[in-house]
Amino acid sequence: MSKEDANELALLLNTPSSELGSCRYKIADPDKDDTDYRRILEIFKKYDVRYFFYNGGNDSMDTCDKVSRFMAKSGYECRVMGVPKTIDNDLYGTDHCPGFASAAKYIATSVAEVYKDARVYDTGMVTIIEIMGRHAGWLAASAVLAEVSGCAPDLIYLPEVDFDMDKFLDKVSRIYKEKGNCIVAVSEGIHYADGTFVSEAKTSATDGFGHAQLGGLAARLAEVVKEKTGAKVRGIELSLLQRCGAHLASQTDIEEAFMAGKTAVEAAVAGETGKMVAFKCDRTNGYKCEPELLPLTAVANYEKKVPLEWITPDGDYVTKDFIDYALPLIQGEPERKLENGMPRFARLKKIVAE
Amino acid sequence: MSKEDANELALLLNTPSSELGSCRYKIADPDKDDTDYRRILEIFKKYDVRYFFYNGGNDSMDTCDKVSRFMAKSGYECRVMGVPKTIDNDLYGTDHCPGFASAAKYIATSVAEVYKDARVYDTGMVTIIEIMGRHAGWLAASAVLAEVSGCAPDLIYLPEVDFDMDKFLDKVSRIYKEKGNCIVAVSEGIHYADGTFVSEAKTSATDGFGHAQLGGLAARLAEVVKEKTGAKVRGIELSLLQRCGAHLASQTDIEEAFMAGKTAVEAAVAGETGKMVAFKCDRTNGYKCEPELLPLTAVANYEKKVPLEWITPDGDYVTKDFIDYALPLIQGEPERKLENGMPRFARLKKIVAE
Repeated sequence: MSKEDANELALLLNTPSSELGSCRYKIADPDKDDTDYRRILEIFKKYDVRYFFYNGGNDSMDTCDKVSRFMAKSGYECRVMGVPKTIDNDLYGTDHCPGFASAAKYIATSVAEVYKDARVYDTGMVTIIEIMGRHAGWLAASAVLAEVSGCAPDLIYLPEVDFDMDKFLDKVSRIYKEKGNCIVAVSEGIHYADGTFVSEAKTSATDGFGHAQLGGLAARLAEVVKEKTGAKVRGIELSLLQRCGAHLASQTDIEEAFMAGKTAVEAAVAGETGKMVAFKCDRTNGYKCEPELLPLTAVANYEKKVPLEWITPDGDYVTKDFIDYALPLIQGEPERKLENGMPRFARLKKIVAE
Repeated sequence: MSKEDANELALLLNTPSSELGSCRYKIADPDKDDTDYRRILEIFKKYDVRYFFYNGGNDSMDTCDKVSRFMAKSGYECRVMGVPKTIDNDLYGTDHCPGFASAAKYIATSVAEVYKDARVYDTGMVTIIEIMGRHAGWLAASAVLAEVSGCAPDLIYLPEVDFDMDKFLDKVSRIYKEKGNCIVAVSEGIHYADGTFVSEAKTSATDGFGHAQLGGLAARLAEVVKEKTGAKVRGIELSLLQRCGAHLASQTDIEEAFMAGKTAVEAAVAGETGKMVAFKCDRTNGYKCEPELLPLTAVANYEKKVPLEWITPDGDYVTKDFIDYALPLIQGEPERKLENGMPRFARLKKIVAE
């Protein structure tokens, strides 16, 4: 890293994705199979790695915790720190996770823009917007922030509560009849009372033969709503765009992400290990966010969901509590470096150690 | 309009969609059925409407031309002007159309961001991005501008040339094998040599029974590529977002759109009628764009497509000519008014005349 150009490193603040790369690898329980851990130790020893920072969400904190405990047991001195980062916002023990606020801002802005587009014709339309979040509805709930632009969606469905197709169709029909338009935000993870994902369930109307279906949840719900209401229906999947839309990042988020990394480094240098940086926030008098350290063991393997009290009794909207929680997080517009009207992303040399 | 707050009207520059509303109505040939025209004339007379500005793309210019000719024939003095606006960029006689550049900027930026996201893992991925444009490939071609950010897609398919599924699959497989990744931009309007849209054609592999398929072109191509290559494949549809993403508008586009409207008003006041505002551009020494007036009859009912010389011989990319054409158009970032981190759109009273 020290061989990289400082200006290029600074551009990382506005470069989407992880420039250093990433992995999806489920590491074994070290008590059952320590092959991977012995290999990690070998590499750490070879390069004299004494600090290990691991960036990610729930699974990553689990990995980080396991590596931390293995290092401690092995007697090799290496300080291991978890640095939170997940748009899913489902890490336990922290007010929120870096990444979430920027995705939330992207989602809310896109919902507001689509709202405007969907109402341009006198002939009405039902619009169904599919948002990421398999088990926790933080991202889908963020659609409510479009209210700030006067463009609140009509219905919001989260995976925290069971989905009822009949009630959903009744609600959409009623709103469509009353207003001529209906905008629905749905989490990809919504499921029926029996636990089946709506995105996976076979709907006999569209797939009597049990074929693999193309298209996601939004397309499927659009089909069902069209059949029921006869309305023009659009299914929109925010897809990867909500995860990498750095041009709509929240400056608050960028600053807090940086603070999380900085805190981890400073704490490790000061002797800490086996901890994750968490955020402690105060919203009583403006908004204040401070880092704190939590033991990795206390964080790993818990999933933080949207509190049920923040979901309306009908299960189809979120309360003002959610807005109060999320709105301070999406504040501030980053200054992006552009070249020729296009984003100038960091260009790293990525020199690999011999 | 004069009863609206001037500050709110100014916000229209950064408000997506058309705040005054829009319609999709195919007006009859006045020589065959003049019912609509007589009604329009009645309304115009009732409110003493002497100026009529009609904003849109190909069909709108046809409507505008018909109304203009009817008014001239009827002897009622009303000056009729066409003001171009279409992200499809397919209006004849003008260098480009207001709206196109902002959509192009949204598309190019999104492709660049997705490119970053798609390469984060060591395990490769094929990403297929579906872009609007049923008959003309201007929008899909704009994906090439991601090159400016160092994130050029690998393949670009436009409706201007016939699509060959076997050649496509071979190309994707080869690129995926060589680079471990492949990013494809496709226009929704790509079609086989016999004219069938790829989005509509039944592919036996996925739909042997001829059922209505959910999901669009991207999902369908993703399925076929997955089967052929075994790669992880993502289909992304930019959907309505590319049409209403005002937060990523091009300032050049906004200024030119304003200029088009202003030119139309000034020309009409000066006595012109039956004309459309067009852009004449010079790219030899920097970029210069000037408005000119064209007779509506010369514009209506022609469709401007991407020149075949701008498409590579293999039909799977665009040449530097396209970049030289489009890059000046996406320059400049608008200053957007925000409230609480969210866009502050225009709020009009829309007082309806009695």
